[in-house]
Amino acid sequence: MPGAGRAAGVRRLGPQPSEEPPAQEEDQDLLLAAAYVSDAQYNRNVPFETSPRAIRLYYFYNHWTMQVAIYFFICVDLSLALFEVPALFPLPFLATSIAEVLCLTAFFGRLVHFAKVTPQMVFWKDTKNICIMVTIVLTLFDLIIYGSLEAVNIHSIRWSRALRPVFLINFPESRQIRRTFRSIRNTLPDILYVFLLFVFSVLIFSLMALKLFGDRGLQTVEGSPYFTNILEIAFELYVLVTTANSPDVMMPAYNFSWWYSLYFITYIIINTYIFMSVFLAVVYNNYRKHLKNEIRKLAYLKRHKMIEAFNILKVKVGTEFVVMEARWKQLARIVMPHISGPHLELLLRISDEGQKGHVDKMNFIRLADLLNIQVVTINIKRHPLEDWMPRVYQSSASLLVQRMVRHRIFVWVYDVIILINAIFIALDEKNPFISYAEWLFLSLYIIEILLKLYTYEPRAYFGRKQFWNWFDTLIIIAALVATVANTTIQSARKYNSQQILDIVLILRILRLLRIIVSIQRFRLIVTTLINIGPTILTFGGLVLVVYYVFAIIGMEAFHGKVQFFDPNFTTPNALVCGNPALKDSAFARDRYCKNNFNDLASSFIVLMELTVVNQWHVLAGGFALVTHQAAKLYFIGFHVVVVILIVNIFIAFILEAFFVAYSLEKSEVETAIEKKIQELGVGIQEEEMQDGKLVDNMDAKDSGFSGDDGDNKRKALKGLYFRIASKKYRTVDALLQQMFESEIAPEDEGPSLDEILNFSPGDVYPKNPNFENSA
Amino acid sequence: MPGAGRAAGVRRLGPQPSEEPPAQEEDQDLLLAAAYVSDAQYNRNVPFETSPRAIRLYYFYNHWTMQVAIYFFICVDLSLALFEVPALFPLPFLATSIAEVLCLTAFFGRLVHFAKVTPQMVFWKDTKNICIMVTIVLTLFDLIIYGSLEAVNIHSIRWSRALRPVFLINFPESRQIRRTFRSIRNTLPDILYVFLLFVFSVLIFSLMALKLFGDRGLQTVEGSPYFTNILEIAFELYVLVTTANSPDVMMPAYNFSWWYSLYFITYIIINTYIFMSVFLAVVYNNYRKHLKNEIRKLAYLKRHKMIEAFNILKVKVGTEFVVMEARWKQLARIVMPHISGPHLELLLRISDEGQKGHVDKMNFIRLADLLNIQVVTINIKRHPLEDWMPRVYQSSASLLVQRMVRHRIFVWVYDVIILINAIFIALDEKNPFISYAEWLFLSLYIIEILLKLYTYEPRAYFGRKQFWNWFDTLIIIAALVATVANTTIQSARKYNSQQILDIVLILRILRLLRIIVSIQRFRLIVTTLINIGPTILTFGGLVLVVYYVFAIIGMEAFHGKVQFFDPNFTTPNALVCGNPALKDSAFARDRYCKNNFNDLASSFIVLMELTVVNQWHVLAGGFALVTHQAAKLYFIGFHVVVVILIVNIFIAFILEAFFVAYSLEKSEVETAIEKKIQELGVGIQEEEMQDGKLVDNMDAKDSGFSGDDGDNKRKALKGLYFRIASKKYRTVDALLQQMFESEIAPEDEGPSLDEILNFSPGDVYPKNPNFENSA
Repeated sequence: MPGAGRAAGVRRLGPQPSEEPPAQEEDQDLLLAAAYVSDAQYNRNVPFETSPRAIRLYYFYNHWTMQVAIYFFICVDLSLALFEVPALFPLPFLATSIAEVLCLTAFFGRLVHFAKVTPQMVFWKDTKNICIMVTIVLTLFDLIIYGSLEAVNIHSIRWSRALRPVFLINFPESRQIRRTFRSIRNTLPDILYVFLLFVFSVLIFSLMALKLFGDRGLQTVEGSPYFTNILEIAFELYVLVTTANSPDVMMPAYNFSWWYSLYFITYIIINTYIFMSVFLAVVYNNYRKHLKNEIRKLAYLKRHKMIEAFNILKVKVGTEFVVMEARWKQLARIVMPHISGPHLELLLRISDEGQKGHVDKMNFIRLADLLNIQVVTINIKRHPLEDWMPRVYQSSASLLVQRMVRHRIFVWVYDVIILINAIFIALDEKNPFISYAEWLFLSLYIIEILLKLYTYEPRAYFGRKQFWNWFDTLIIIAALVATVANTTIQSARKYNSQQILDIVLILRILRLLRIIVSIQRFRLIVTTLINIGPTILTFGGLVLVVYYVFAIIGMEAFHGKVQFFDPNFTTPNALVCGNPALKDSAFARDRYCKNNFNDLASSFIVLMELTVVNQWHVLAGGFALVTHQAAKLYFIGFHVVVVILIVNIFIAFILEAFFVAYSLEKSEVETAIEKKIQELGVGIQEEEMQDGKLVDNMDAKDSGFSGDDGDNKRKALKGLYFRIASKKYRTVDALLQQMFESEIAPEDEGPSLDEILNFSPGDVYPKNPNFENSA
Repeated sequence: MPGAGRAAGVRRLGPQPSEEPPAQEEDQDLLLAAAYVSDAQYNRNVPFETSPRAIRLYYFYNHWTMQVAIYFFICVDLSLALFEVPALFPLPFLATSIAEVLCLTAFFGRLVHFAKVTPQMVFWKDTKNICIMVTIVLTLFDLIIYGSLEAVNIHSIRWSRALRPVFLINFPESRQIRRTFRSIRNTLPDILYVFLLFVFSVLIFSLMALKLFGDRGLQTVEGSPYFTNILEIAFELYVLVTTANSPDVMMPAYNFSWWYSLYFITYIIINTYIFMSVFLAVVYNNYRKHLKNEIRKLAYLKRHKMIEAFNILKVKVGTEFVVMEARWKQLARIVMPHISGPHLELLLRISDEGQKGHVDKMNFIRLADLLNIQVVTINIKRHPLEDWMPRVYQSSASLLVQRMVRHRIFVWVYDVIILINAIFIALDEKNPFISYAEWLFLSLYIIEILLKLYTYEPRAYFGRKQFWNWFDTLIIIAALVATVANTTIQSARKYNSQQILDIVLILRILRLLRIIVSIQRFRLIVTTLINIGPTILTFGGLVLVVYYVFAIIGMEAFHGKVQFFDPNFTTPNALVCGNPALKDSAFARDRYCKNNFNDLASSFIVLMELTVVNQWHVLAGGFALVTHQAAKLYFIGFHVVVVILIVNIFIAFILEAFFVAYSLEKSEVETAIEKKIQELGVGIQEEEMQDGKLVDNMDAKDSGFSGDDGDNKRKALKGLYFRIASKKYRTVDALLQQMFESEIAPEDEGPSLDEILNFSPGDVYPKNPNFENSA
């Protein structure tokens, strides 16, 4: 594909051939079919034109360099906020605006490219494209106004900066983030009514509080009047829902009479516990519903594309349409240029079960799935040392070492060493004896890795999925490098480099994580968490978008209002964060001066603190004091968007991921591949691969067949072995899609394209109770 | 049944007849069968002996007076803590110990009764019974020791008080609470590993914090050294997981260097967000799994009992075994003595489809379900006023009033009145004009209710399920009574009764809730919440048990250490809650003196505050200061048990309840009943019953058929109408069971009794993907 893409790119730059020569007609078909298969494989849903020129442009459009470039420009565009006023690293307006115009040009170029690939109708009906264009125009507009006002020294607001995340959301590559946004949008109507009822409940309780406590003359701990203003009460009670001011808000009333605590208990049960759970339930339910719908759409679109590809390549053999073997191989090579010969042969044997020299429709449709299943080809070799010096490696001393390293006690000994190491770390480091011990531990760990490399085949030990071996080795090497660097610097300049020392410390402690490897249950939990990792990154994108918008608004509204002074300064001005309005406020008392909106990084940290919720009312109160009480709306808005919506979707996602992980089953396609691998006798059980046991196992066989047919065996072992990559590293999406696909009959061609695109969660097609209930 | 129970009870007191006369044999069979059916209907699973005497004792055992009595004694036993040292209402030790011995006697009596009902083998194998007996013995033992020590003036600890909840949990009546406990117990192994990994992670981070921040010489806001002791760090970081000390715990490091905030962000993402979500996921997953298992068990046990009952009553007619109609009717009358004739007739017509005079096995098994479905029989009558003075009621003025009240605008007008009322309440009440307005609003509301009663048939308006009409009327009447009482007291004695005034205020504001009735979506949400209500009470029971145990321990450990003084006292002693150890502590600064363990009520409120989590570290720190740092373990333990386990189970329950409510479908049995009701032409659509529209609808028909066949119609309308009670008021359990039962084939008799009782969540019987996935 990269080759094809590059070729297309080159041609695009030169003059376009007006008519393709008929010899290339075949090639064009193949390219078109490959584009469909590739789209099906990666779940891309870009409707592209089928003219030869559009197809070549489309290959170029999907080329990885283009994608990297667009992400690069998005990053540059977003990070401009670091350099603009209020800046972390100030740059002149001219520099940032030139950079921004550059980015906008790149986005516009990408859009033009897309417009050339896709039919005009589709392009103009897609809100994504309209969004990007409008944002580009608005940004240019804003830049010009701001620039000209700046030229005459009038300071205005760069409001278009809040629109920058639009680019991140709306490019077709950010499908995941967009889906989460869609999920939120779909949830809104349902959640709105619950939210209104919740607000109604808070208001009713506020009114009650005003009547019950307003005239009592009670005082808060700070000595201010307690519950006398309905708006303040409503805010305090909203804060109580987030639990951030419990039990302080209750204490004055409770101190006055035992009886009033019942009011607060009722309030907490209804609003904090029940309503917040209902929010989670509504969000989760909608998330599930819409996830199912999207997955169903994807599954049908995939099948649709595979059928298109089949129809392009099909020839009639006997009574049925098929794709010839040579064409099939060409296609697979275009879609996956780096596929190894044996792997392709394996896939062909699965697709062409009867070795008839052609692939029928049913099997052709499976191609995208077959290509998606990672088949690990393992080249089993003897240990290199065995090749270089077989005598020494097979000597009894060497074999003893190997058996020792493989023994369970070896693992236990090192667990004990780690524990002793932990105790040493916890002890005071000033003691020279303990700091020498550090070198001892480091060498012990290095010896362990060397011993393992001696015993296990190095390429198997550092296999692609051997996460824990990599983790082990990297941590130790990094610790070694950092410790040596630190010691060198220390001894050379008598100067303690703070940064390096911190890194050394952290690495030293991270080493302790290795103990997780020894406990099976721990390893399982961590693997599940790592598995969820990629989709958590989607949430990272979502959170980034929301944070960015709120940070830009926050910087415009609160920038410079709160100053941070060195903690050692105790001038009155430093104590009130440079703003007299904060005198006697909880904000100044808690020394929150550094929680300000004076640059992007600080803003992000404040927003993170607001996400964690605790003390958010103190932050909100502080910023309200330095501006206006209405500023609290900004903080309430942030709480509603981030905590009630996004954090709940995050929890819904984790719950769903766990449930899907619990109901894992092998897909039909996987089973077919595995069967074929077994039939051909080139399979290895997944379990044997765990923790380098593979090599272990192989060696065991070796020693079992020592002597007579040893050479024969060894030849077989030297060959190529296949194994389906562990399911544990699959994403939730892929698993759900697989679950759904196993429910569609293989001959079901699905509804029409239009119908698919307009699926709504209510439709059930196919009538499929299992999937409906489980997903 | 009560009749039968009473008879049995009387006989038990008299001399036992050594041999039943043969004429009573039949009766005995019927009683036994009725016991089985009744057990099936209420999901009771007490294996009882089938001797005539045991059956009669069993009826007596299940009699409602016995159940009420046992709950009464449990309440007395639990509430003794209010009267024992440290007491809210002190009573001498002699009084409380006599009351306790009385309760223990009652529990023992109930146990003896149970032992006579159930086979010996079963009785002694049941841990519940052993638990109760051991607890009774331990409590007596403790009472004697404590009493004798008290006699010689040595004060010891009444440790057995913490065991009291055992009685609440272990009596067969508390099935729901026990099930939740079982659910927690089953979750423990899974959650333990996650918890250990979590603790490991906290410790690793503590070690890192010690190394990173320990030597910096940083200070907290209070001026104490920052992060220097590994145990304190671990506690602070555990508190950070609960978010209670965010962002304060971060500020010193963050003020020192921007760089260190990354450490805290990483910590929060890993431990607060990911680990806490994983806890929820594990708890929820286990909850679902075990819930399914329990429901499956219940469903099979029910079927098993119905088959037993059938086997007792069956006679051979032709080739198949059946139950004769007369016997079936006798049985139904014993099981449900208050069933109305027409209702019984309806059930018979459903069970004996072909009117053959007998009920076959398939239909007999449905009896328990049929009896469980609440069929509302509605006696449609004309408005009483129409009977008393038809002329006046049917006059054009009267009809105009009726049409007006039924009009949508009538509702809107009253919504506006409520809003104006809300504004008046929010305004200052000191103004005499506004306090007169209160009387105006009250009379407006009363007029509304009177108008509605004039228009709608009163008995339909106050129907059993017309929750909102009842709510409306009760609130208004209560407000009227309270307002009148208040005014009387005020004018008579010039004295403002605080309690009554508070109640009036609350009632006045609760009236505003009526606006919910007008908005369909709001009403739906509230109805769902009310529906979940009964099971939330189960959680109340569970929370009560845990709170009680922790409160007793807390009172023994912390009682008297913290004193509350009147807020107006500002002596130094009052400011440190009477304990010099609290000087300069956050506990005293926040004026938390009333948060103490000096009596049961205060303890419960402290525990409630700990459940809400915020500031729990301040409470823990305070009690640690007045006793010992180890006291923090008590608070950490409470957090783990209540917040990590119980609150998560609560959330899991609400989620599940919502999902089940979303996937509601009518059960097969309900459909059968509805079909029959329709066939017989005595049905009313559920929707028509909503909001008194039923009467509306009937009247509309009346006016439609005016004149010619009016009388004929009216006769039909005067008859008895049936309607299946709204599903909205069904519990989650019942819905789940119904879902599962629809999956068992009607002829499936299920596995044997032993197999049923030993079901584990792993077993799938029947192999049933739908239910497995959905429940």
